[in-house]
Amino acid sequence: MTNLRVGVVGASGYGGGELVRLLAEHPHVDLTYVTSNTYEGQSIRKALPGTAKRLAITFEPFHLVAATDRCDCVFLAGESGLAMRLAPGLLEHHVKVIDLSADFRLTDPAVFTEWYKSEHTAVDTLKSAVYGLPELNRQRIRAASLIANPGCYPTSAILAVAPLLKNDLVDTKSIIVDSMSGVSGAGRSKFGLDLHFSEVNDSVKAYGVGGKHRHTPEIEQVLTSVSKQPVTITFTPHLIPVTRGILTTAYANLTGSYEQVRETFADAYAHEPFVYVHEEGEFPATKHVQASNACHIGLCYDSRTGRVIVVSAIDNLIKGAAGQAVQNMNIMSNFEETAGLSMPSVWP
Amino acid sequence: MTNLRVGVVGASGYGGGELVRLLAEHPHVDLTYVTSNTYEGQSIRKALPGTAKRLAITFEPFHLVAATDRCDCVFLAGESGLAMRLAPGLLEHHVKVIDLSADFRLTDPAVFTEWYKSEHTAVDTLKSAVYGLPELNRQRIRAASLIANPGCYPTSAILAVAPLLKNDLVDTKSIIVDSMSGVSGAGRSKFGLDLHFSEVNDSVKAYGVGGKHRHTPEIEQVLTSVSKQPVTITFTPHLIPVTRGILTTAYANLTGSYEQVRETFADAYAHEPFVYVHEEGEFPATKHVQASNACHIGLCYDSRTGRVIVVSAIDNLIKGAAGQAVQNMNIMSNFEETAGLSMPSVWP
Amino acid sequence: MTNLRVGVVGASGYGGGELVRLLAEHPHVDLTYVTSNTYEGQSIRKALPGTAKRLAITFEPFHLVAATDRCDCVFLAGESGLAMRLAPGLLEHHVKVIDLSADFRLTDPAVFTEWYKSEHTAVDTLKSAVYGLPELNRQRIRAASLIANPGCYPTSAILAVAPLLKNDLVDTKSIIVDSMSGVSGAGRSKFGLDLHFSEVNDSVKAYGVGGKHRHTPEIEQVLTSVSKQPVTITFTPHLIPVTRGILTTAYANLTGSYEQVRETFADAYAHEPFVYVHEEGEFPATKHVQASNACHIGLCYDSRTGRVIVVSAIDNLIKGAAGQAVQNMNIMSNFEETAGLSMPSVWP
Amino acid sequence: MTNLRVGVVGASGYGGGELVRLLAEHPHVDLTYVTSNTYEGQSIRKALPGTAKRLAITFEPFHLVAATDRCDCVFLAGESGLAMRLAPGLLEHHVKVIDLSADFRLTDPAVFTEWYKSEHTAVDTLKSAVYGLPELNRQRIRAASLIANPGCYPTSAILAVAPLLKNDLVDTKSIIVDSMSGVSGAGRSKFGLDLHFSEVNDSVKAYGVGGKHRHTPEIEQVLTSVSKQPVTITFTPHLIPVTRGILTTAYANLTGSYEQVRETFADAYAHEPFVYVHEEGEFPATKHVQASNACHIGLCYDSRTGRVIVVSAIDNLIKGAAGQAVQNMNIMSNFEETAGLSMPSVWP
Repeated sequence: MTNLRVGVVGASGYGGGELVRLLAEHPHVDLTYVTSNTYEGQSIRKALPGTAKRLAITFEPFHLVAATDRCDCVFLAGESGLAMRLAPGLLEHHVKVIDLSADFRLTDPAVFTEWYKSEHTAVDTLKSAVYGLPELNRQRIRAASLIANPGCYPTSAILAVAPLLKNDLVDTKSIIVDSMSGVSGAGRSKFGLDLHFSEVNDSVKAYGVGGKHRHTPEIEQVLTSVSKQPVTITFTPHLIPVTRGILTTAYANLTGSYEQVRETFADAYAHEPFVYVHEEGEFPATKHVQASNACHIGLCYDSRTGRVIVVSAIDNLIKGAAGQAVQNMNIMSNFEETAGLSMPSVWP
Repeated sequence: MTNLRVGVVGASGYGGGELVRLLAEHPHVDLTYVTSNTYEGQSIRKALPGTAKRLAITFEPFHLVAATDRCDCVFLAGESGLAMRLAPGLLEHHVKVIDLSADFRLTDPAVFTEWYKSEHTAVDTLKSAVYGLPELNRQRIRAASLIANPGCYPTSAILAVAPLLKNDLVDTKSIIVDSMSGVSGAGRSKFGLDLHFSEVNDSVKAYGVGGKHRHTPEIEQVLTSVSKQPVTITFTPHLIPVTRGILTTAYANLTGSYEQVRETFADAYAHEPFVYVHEEGEFPATKHVQASNACHIGLCYDSRTGRVIVVSAIDNLIKGAAGQAVQNMNIMSNFEETAGLSMPSVWP
Repeated sequence: MTNLRVGVVGASGYGGGELVRLLAEHPHVDLTYVTSNTYEGQSIRKALPGTAKRLAITFEPFHLVAATDRCDCVFLAGESGLAMRLAPGLLEHHVKVIDLSADFRLTDPAVFTEWYKSEHTAVDTLKSAVYGLPELNRQRIRAASLIANPGCYPTSAILAVAPLLKNDLVDTKSIIVDSMSGVSGAGRSKFGLDLHFSEVNDSVKAYGVGGKHRHTPEIEQVLTSVSKQPVTITFTPHLIPVTRGILTTAYANLTGSYEQVRETFADAYAHEPFVYVHEEGEFPATKHVQASNACHIGLCYDSRTGRVIVVSAIDNLIKGAAGQAVQNMNIMSNFEETAGLSMPSVWP
Repeated sequence: MTNLRVGVVGASGYGGGELVRLLAEHPHVDLTYVTSNTYEGQSIRKALPGTAKRLAITFEPFHLVAATDRCDCVFLAGESGLAMRLAPGLLEHHVKVIDLSADFRLTDPAVFTEWYKSEHTAVDTLKSAVYGLPELNRQRIRAASLIANPGCYPTSAILAVAPLLKNDLVDTKSIIVDSMSGVSGAGRSKFGLDLHFSEVNDSVKAYGVGGKHRHTPEIEQVLTSVSKQPVTITFTPHLIPVTRGILTTAYANLTGSYEQVRETFADAYAHEPFVYVHEEGEFPATKHVQASNACHIGLCYDSRTGRVIVVSAIDNLIKGAAGQAVQNMNIMSNFEETAGLSMPSVWP
């Protein structure tokens, strides 16, 4: 089998850097093309210091011809708006595209415009995009040419809540998703005082309170599709002083039995290579999944209030971004799904 | 006016150490007696390094005669169970007692036994205890001889939720309290692998999930007393990698209007010296209240789901423990309520 | 005694914010004038969130007339270059000036130009400036109108090394100053990727290696003045993932005896209100002095190599900036030297 | 080629856990035997949560027969003293041993006794041990049956200083090694208040000041062997609030030229797979090498003082422990030296 030739556009950011790290070691891949606007023409180690002595690549500018000549599959890890511009041309040349931005996640362009305050300029392409959450969409991913790689918060929320909805076990009006994210989720290119070490360190805050975070409609869209009833959630993200990791604590009023809940999660994830459901009474910490593609989930029934509580932990840059993108590539390419993603998490 | 003579029992822990720090600078207080089992006979700076050159005191063992001879008011900052043993004797000698443990917080001894797995051995004394949350109980605190100083999570939760209940603005069955606490809340004397820097740093986890944390009945008791209906909540604490601070994000289904919510909070806290309600659209971070007795609160209405969200921030060792205890002492002693507590928070 | 009327120019930065916090509670001071370019016209709590409910002040723009009308003493906490512009006018109107920038620290304008890459535009004023390290210059500070408040690294280095030089106990060519600083030392107004939480957290690096940091000539100037021989040092600063604090580990080849070293430090600091010398075998941590004006020092003789090692800890924003500035104001104003600075450090 | 069968004794600690993580993914290895006293009989994920769904192994007790039956090579990752007891028996059965403790690092048993306060009970075995720093001893490692895997501080110090000594470029009496280590270096099994998150977080301290740290004789022994003159150093470790990573800043008085220094480092490390020497003016951060086997080095000449300054960064658990052990195994087994160790570091 010849290796798949892959490119990463926007490889000097945190998500793009993780793609480089994972793809460089992937057994069935040749990393042939790596672009960055900021670091164009410079050695990759200038942006990604840990590649020194491990990778000798130079950041290039993006050119469609170069991308289509040298790549079978391109990961787009740039800012919102970039993928709408680049994906159509790549797809036309039969290059598969895995987009880590939000451009192709929302199926309704009007909803995109409402939340992202700009027109969707690739509506035709949008129709062919498949939402790249393997635990829900594996079959469609296998056949896709364009993957909308899920957001980090949505990955953690959907993996925690979707099994409850699929089996009609909770009141769909009662769902609250309370999440805490590490700071790398805010990216590397835009930063202000709110990401200054001195103001983030040793502190925690809520932001986007009241359903204002752009990941809200993405979570609702997917949960609605699973539930077959409209699902509206309260979603509150928090910024915590950690580099990586999202912990989501989700609440819902149970309408079924807790035994059904445990069975449902067991059924949903027993054969999933990356989702681990804790034994009763155990709960995950984000450090448990650090630098791995794992999602760990803990379950609990609060008999005093009739609520089920689901706690999920992921690494926002791996299962919440680059690792999930590689998992999607593996599925699309008929590789073993864990290829390049099998390392246990880094501990401690 | 002669100064109040005060003692701190258990002064080498984190809460006790904060009491020492605050009382040492208090304008109307003489700190006359400081005890520690672990550091008995040693200079205070051995346990509290920041007192070097600022305080020349030696830790003593606890003796009732010493305490009653030398103190008008004693703060008990030891482990659960200590206050039940010491408070009756102190009160008998007309020494006022402010207890920072849980011993006198739950009014029903059966509830105490259920959650703390031991008999309550001072049931008569318990009847005279006043729950020391000044924003709710100022008049009763003024007349009290024994204060049950609130827990850290309850302080943050009650200040966030009580106004909603007092004015019947939310569904009492819908309340979820999601809190994140710094590690100092776990105290200094008992520690295991779960407090090891390497396992806590750069990570977050939930614990006591499903209403298992001992602060649950305390929050419910106080909210019930405010609401006049039984209030049962879902409370989930999380451990975050910060030393100090609790952020609580509370959710409830709004039955009144959001204008009423804002008015209610304005009425409740406009004249409170330590509770600050943010303007619409602003939310607190725990760093905003670091090392101060402040509680900062942000409010939001999620119109998509009909929920009101209240975010509160305190320093768990100050408004959540030692500072609130000093505030109670000020009220009991007819001092200005902010005496010794007026310093703005440490920033950044 | 009427209170001293003081102003803070550049009060929305980290150093300026600490001045506000300390001066607001100072028993002999009225804080009458607080300026900020960034936050002009806004409430002080917009920049300094911990002042909410504790201080009701609005940031103003700087005007010389306002400053001289309303202040007896002005603290300049702006960027390098500002004090050269403002100090002459303030002094002419008999307003005392305490400058926290580097403008008046280096006595030789040519050295200033060499290290700060700009002309010194207030050379006459420079002659009257007194270097505000009370432990060395208390008498001159008492009589001064213009204080050059020491840099944070120099404060930690000079307090550690000066006693060795004053008594000729070490080889003046052998001094190495290795320091670690918290991130707040880099200030609040200029920041890049190097202060992004995600890149600083859980990491440490050296910078300015090889005597390139601008505090190098300041340390050497003061040590030379103490030693009466030219002192050239190797100074390496490191950036550590803490908000506040500098730890300096200084090395020198001992020419005297270690007994003389201990006596020298005892003599130098026994009566200093803020410098504490640890017992043999004990060493400071930066957390020991957090949010206080203390400097803690530990001493050691490495008999295997003949070197003396001195470890000092300060809070870079207090003893390394705002607290030392207040200490200087106290001395200049004949206040008790510890006025407004007596609180023990915040622990933990 | 059949895979090498390897075992890890003491696999539930931080170093042992890293061995498990690296060996589980090693292309030429079968991890056949994993022991832990604390977790005997339990699933590996109880101690190493990141192995869930990636590894299905149970911790066993140590038995010599099991080890010799099932392993070609055993890693000993237990406390000091364990290897002296186990290594002779393993070696007798022709099982290769890589010991991560200090038991076989010091060639002179009297020096061992002086620093570790206990007799060396395997003096004959000690003679055959090879100090496993590949950059110095690759040929001897290739032929060895027993490897004394270097300490974390020594690895960082020796890689920084040895080239200077090999080529006689510095005054051997002038060497100062100033190091900062993450907390995982203190291990997982013994902990006290000094490793409590609340006391370590947001703080830095020196410890073992004055040559008291047990890694001092190890560094000196190796540097002496390289230099052929007795080398005595001043070594000061510091504890910083990071989980992983050691940064060493080493100082020495230059006797040769700085050009020679740069050439020497280029010669020493150009062909080393894991040691990267920065361009002039660039220096490493520990985060650059996080979770990788890399050592990054920056060089500088301080012309003002005639000193050369070398800054090195490693991950204490990888190049400072488990990764270096795997590198040694690779060399001993004629595997590619980077097998299982080729992943770029985790960033950020």
